[in-house]
Amino acid sequence: IASPSSADLKLQFAPFSSALEAGFWHQLTQKKLNDYRLDESPKCIKGYYYNGDPVGLPTRLNLEFSAFDVDGPTPARCSPAVGTLYNTNTLDSFKIIDKKALLEKEAREIWDSIQSGAAWKDPSTLCRFILLTFADLKKYHFYYWFCFPALCFPEGIKIVQPPSLLEQIFSAKQIAALQEAYDSLCMKRGTTALPYFLMKYTDDTVELASLGDGETFFTDTMMVTVGVYDPCTLSQHPGWPLRNLLVLLANQWGSKVDTVEVLCFRDRTLQGSRSIQHSIMFQVKLPELPNNSVCPKSVGWEKNKKGAMGPRMVNLSECMDPKRLAASSVDLNLKLMRWRLVPSLDLDKVVSTKCLLLGAGTLGCNVARTLMGWGVRHITFVDNAKISYSNPVRQPLYEFEDCLGGGKSKAMAAVDRLTKIFPGVNAEGYNMSIPMPGHPVNFSQATLSQAQKDVEQLEKLISEHDVVFLLMDTRESRWLPTVIAASKRKLVVNAALGFDTFVVMRHGLKKPPVSQSVSTGADSSPSSPGSSLFSNIPGHKLGCYFCNDVVAPGDSTRDRTLDQQCTVSRPGLAMIAGALAVEMMVSILQHSEGGYAVASSSEDRMNEPPTSLGLVPHQVLDHYEREGFSFLSKVFNSSHSFLEDLTGLTLLHQETQAAEVNHSLRYTHTNR
Amino acid sequence: IASPSSADLKLQFAPFSSALEAGFWHQLTQKKLNDYRLDESPKCIKGYYYNGDPVGLPTRLNLEFSAFDVDGPTPARCSPAVGTLYNTNTLDSFKIIDKKALLEKEAREIWDSIQSGAAWKDPSTLCRFILLTFADLKKYHFYYWFCFPALCFPEGIKIVQPPSLLEQIFSAKQIAALQEAYDSLCMKRGTTALPYFLMKYTDDTVELASLGDGETFFTDTMMVTVGVYDPCTLSQHPGWPLRNLLVLLANQWGSKVDTVEVLCFRDRTLQGSRSIQHSIMFQVKLPELPNNSVCPKSVGWEKNKKGAMGPRMVNLSECMDPKRLAASSVDLNLKLMRWRLVPSLDLDKVVSTKCLLLGAGTLGCNVARTLMGWGVRHITFVDNAKISYSNPVRQPLYEFEDCLGGGKSKAMAAVDRLTKIFPGVNAEGYNMSIPMPGHPVNFSQATLSQAQKDVEQLEKLISEHDVVFLLMDTRESRWLPTVIAASKRKLVVNAALGFDTFVVMRHGLKKPPVSQSVSTGADSSPSSPGSSLFSNIPGHKLGCYFCNDVVAPGDSTRDRTLDQQCTVSRPGLAMIAGALAVEMMVSILQHSEGGYAVASSSEDRMNEPPTSLGLVPHQVLDHYEREGFSFLSKVFNSSHSFLEDLTGLTLLHQETQAAEVNHSLRYTHTNR
Repeated sequence: IASPSSADLKLQFAPFSSALEAGFWHQLTQKKLNDYRLDESPKCIKGYYYNGDPVGLPTRLNLEFSAFDVDGPTPARCSPAVGTLYNTNTLDSFKIIDKKALLEKEAREIWDSIQSGAAWKDPSTLCRFILLTFADLKKYHFYYWFCFPALCFPEGIKIVQPPSLLEQIFSAKQIAALQEAYDSLCMKRGTTALPYFLMKYTDDTVELASLGDGETFFTDTMMVTVGVYDPCTLSQHPGWPLRNLLVLLANQWGSKVDTVEVLCFRDRTLQGSRSIQHSIMFQVKLPELPNNSVCPKSVGWEKNKKGAMGPRMVNLSECMDPKRLAASSVDLNLKLMRWRLVPSLDLDKVVSTKCLLLGAGTLGCNVARTLMGWGVRHITFVDNAKISYSNPVRQPLYEFEDCLGGGKSKAMAAVDRLTKIFPGVNAEGYNMSIPMPGHPVNFSQATLSQAQKDVEQLEKLISEHDVVFLLMDTRESRWLPTVIAASKRKLVVNAALGFDTFVVMRHGLKKPPVSQSVSTGADSSPSSPGSSLFSNIPGHKLGCYFCNDVVAPGDSTRDRTLDQQCTVSRPGLAMIAGALAVEMMVSILQHSEGGYAVASSSEDRMNEPPTSLGLVPHQVLDHYEREGFSFLSKVFNSSHSFLEDLTGLTLLHQETQAAEVNHSLRYTHTNR
Repeated sequence: IASPSSADLKLQFAPFSSALEAGFWHQLTQKKLNDYRLDESPKCIKGYYYNGDPVGLPTRLNLEFSAFDVDGPTPARCSPAVGTLYNTNTLDSFKIIDKKALLEKEAREIWDSIQSGAAWKDPSTLCRFILLTFADLKKYHFYYWFCFPALCFPEGIKIVQPPSLLEQIFSAKQIAALQEAYDSLCMKRGTTALPYFLMKYTDDTVELASLGDGETFFTDTMMVTVGVYDPCTLSQHPGWPLRNLLVLLANQWGSKVDTVEVLCFRDRTLQGSRSIQHSIMFQVKLPELPNNSVCPKSVGWEKNKKGAMGPRMVNLSECMDPKRLAASSVDLNLKLMRWRLVPSLDLDKVVSTKCLLLGAGTLGCNVARTLMGWGVRHITFVDNAKISYSNPVRQPLYEFEDCLGGGKSKAMAAVDRLTKIFPGVNAEGYNMSIPMPGHPVNFSQATLSQAQKDVEQLEKLISEHDVVFLLMDTRESRWLPTVIAASKRKLVVNAALGFDTFVVMRHGLKKPPVSQSVSTGADSSPSSPGSSLFSNIPGHKLGCYFCNDVVAPGDSTRDRTLDQQCTVSRPGLAMIAGALAVEMMVSILQHSEGGYAVASSSEDRMNEPPTSLGLVPHQVLDHYEREGFSFLSKVFNSSHSFLEDLTGLTLLHQETQAAEVNHSLRYTHTNR
């Protein structure tokens, strides 16, 4: 209760209590992350108050998620209050900001609108607020300080007739007439709540008008009655909104009006029926303003919960659903990139990308972790291995316990781990083999039909995803997904490890079949020789992992020694390659042409296959698209020579031997 | 039981059962990993057999962990058997190796030693074995096939007098005499088990001799008695060791000897007292060898558990302690590096390095994971933060659950996770703050003494470790550990992230204080200008993170916006920087001069601070070493200017402004 300077005869007002819903803070979080970023300039927001609360509730000014939609609707029967949000970038700014100056600035605006008469036309300016905030989005701690600026009469306001309940002053008839008059004025103004109104009444009638109509509405100006939509529930005190109205009246009417009768209009619904009887009425002597040209003193910063002048803090992390909290937090770091560093970053493009990870080993685990860091939600693993004891220290999705009892399936355990890291992820695992050239499937009808099922499953998976990562540990297991993904025009990112070398590359993304026939002439045009051979190759002309091979893929797992079976590499290498593979994917997604982006010269080493080799995969692709599984089963069951004959490598080998050229094989291959 | 070609009158031998203890396979694993690597050449190993087993046990040839120590002791009362190990690199080699040829080669050697008389002098060549193995060290599956080569008489061996227990043939007196004679011959030969011996007896006496003494020992050669240390427990059959002895006798004595009496010497201990009564004796007709110059047919490959000719497999992963299994498996990948790629790699140097990780955030987690991949066992975390919801997707030691209830301490949770990944790790966590310049500690005696404790704890931790990783998220928190580690001559590896840039560097490692005074002249000599300034800088002349700063570290956390508080970086970056930091440490450790290694030209960008800046840390170091905490507390409590005055940066700034030089600050700084 704000206390005036002198005792019992002065009017006291019940101040607003700020009521900030969790939805407000969530919306502020979004605004800060996505829109405001580092912008600290004042923002317009909208709250509301209600005059129907039951006795006992504080005089609340509510802000909820809708607060940032200033032009949006206000809840029915509530009165809007427009305010200014000052959201600081740091806690220090929040602390050291000049609160007195903020209040005085707002008070000056109210005073100006009173003096200019604008407030008389639009009294909403009388009920404004300031909200000072700092949002610690790492911890979900929100610091805030509310202010409801009120202009003060230096001597306070003298009570002429103390407050009484309306039902003690008005007859039932008058009450009914008031209710009808109020509703009708509201309807006329197209609202369900009028913050202020003028009132005339007799024993039988009640007449209401908007403030702007004041000059002609009253005939007797010695005592006038004004109504205020009053959020206060106390029987002896009006709420805060009346304060600036009285200053407006004093300024407007000056000495013309001596006593003002105030109706604090309270419009409760009790047991299903409407009741305005609990409204209160009283009379005050309208004070004179000392000097019209000087803005009166103002008050309004809210006390904190200890009753002292100071900010409040709400820790939303305690009451939020932890899973939702995790989801917002994951987005936080990503969105911060757009604040200063990469404002144009299209995060949605990254986050919504569906990634298929073929291989859930050293590379697969690291790729998945980096994808999670980028906020990618849809991750699918394919692997047929079980977790062995040597895996957890190098494959960062597995732990010792996953190795017990023969080891869990990698694809399944990887899914479990992703969910443990971030419950919001949409991960799936397929414990399946990828048929490979040189690994025959024609032992029996059963193995053949299993291979057919595996091919179909892989085709389905590749269709359902946007990016295919090749992260296996053999060369030949990359062949089938390379062919299928090329046929389905999916972006392929390929990573492979040596001991202290690695390759991370994207495969060329062929143009869609329709336009392809048109551009065939251009595609097959010979590239100019020399340095330009490797420069600025468009994405659809880039080759694949197999394009610069001179041996077709075959069974490389047979007869491998232990160090050839395991990926013997410097332990840091998989992390580097896995991270780069994902960063490359993100860079490609952010390029306006996506997978068709030109390989810039700095990337040449990474995208080495030149255009002249484009013919090799074409032949394979044609056969795959024409013959499907019957072609594939020939590849699986045959030795190297089948694919080598098909792609012309056999001929190449013969020519090379015949010519006995003194060039390296690759050089010959490149220029044939 | 080997069956001779004709029925009941022919002698049958109980073949050996191979008994390979887990210890043998573990030792083979170690040999394969550390010594043999890709070497498939035959290796000499040693097993043993025992003639004191109770009835019912098979005739076992034992191989345990000691098998690879051919010159080592044989268990007391056991007879050694030397063999040849063929350990193949691949399962395919194991399958396709020519077993017939292996057997024939061994048989030929036995035959040669019989013909040359070598076996007569050293009969151990009669009891050899072959062990063919393939060790799948990824799965701890061991494939093996035993062979005990035995030369065959084409017609078998005719029994003249079937086997009887010794106690049915010898009197108690004879038995006692035999026992005494045997023990005395053993003592004379310095052993507790003689595989073969010659024997003469009367009703009262028993006389024994070694094989080599055979020519003069017997006078009547129509029937001779020979003894064999017999591992068989069957009452009607001798064990395998007799087979080649009979061939030796047939070759040695030819038609001179018709009947041979055989004592299968079995030397049990029953209820605490020795018993040789269970030995058996029988007589056979010594067959003639068809043609002395041709090696007889041989047999010997062991049947598998199904009774068929084929290899056996033991899956050790099922019976091993999973934690020990994990430890071996982790070493596996590391040791494989030494097989082909880096034979000189000193893994012990890496594995035994004690690493102190200051910071358990994005970088700390990735560094720890890479260290685990390198087999580092001793990892200590220092961090004072709690895990927040945004961490798990970027900090790969934490999960969603670690964030609940306000979040676990990062240092402690990191330790828990490492233990879950690899139970053999020796990890510790310290939830503590690192005092920082410009973060005053002089608020009260309590905060001051806490800071002093923190400094002491940090000094202790740095003393106890070999390498200090600086992985914090502020510049000033790196200052104190930089100074302490420099003073204690510990290798410092520093990593820091930008948005798409990062730095990974080692700090210079000053020479020990004693030698320093001697080399001061050389240290302070001006480096030659131009390109050589950055080339081939010895490790002790390299600078530190702060060496090329022109502003002393101070409080950078105050008044930071959200994006400045969080490390806003491309998610893949921390993995790359963390991995490189560890790979750099490993490379330094592998260098013969360790931390004093010259920065080679390719590393120049990474180790940029030139020698001419070496004076700055010297000044700080001198003060720290002279004044200790009282100096430090001045630094913590002061603004930038204290350190800037001390290190001459203030003077530099003044000079720079005065001269108004048109150079960049760094250029000026470098050349001043």
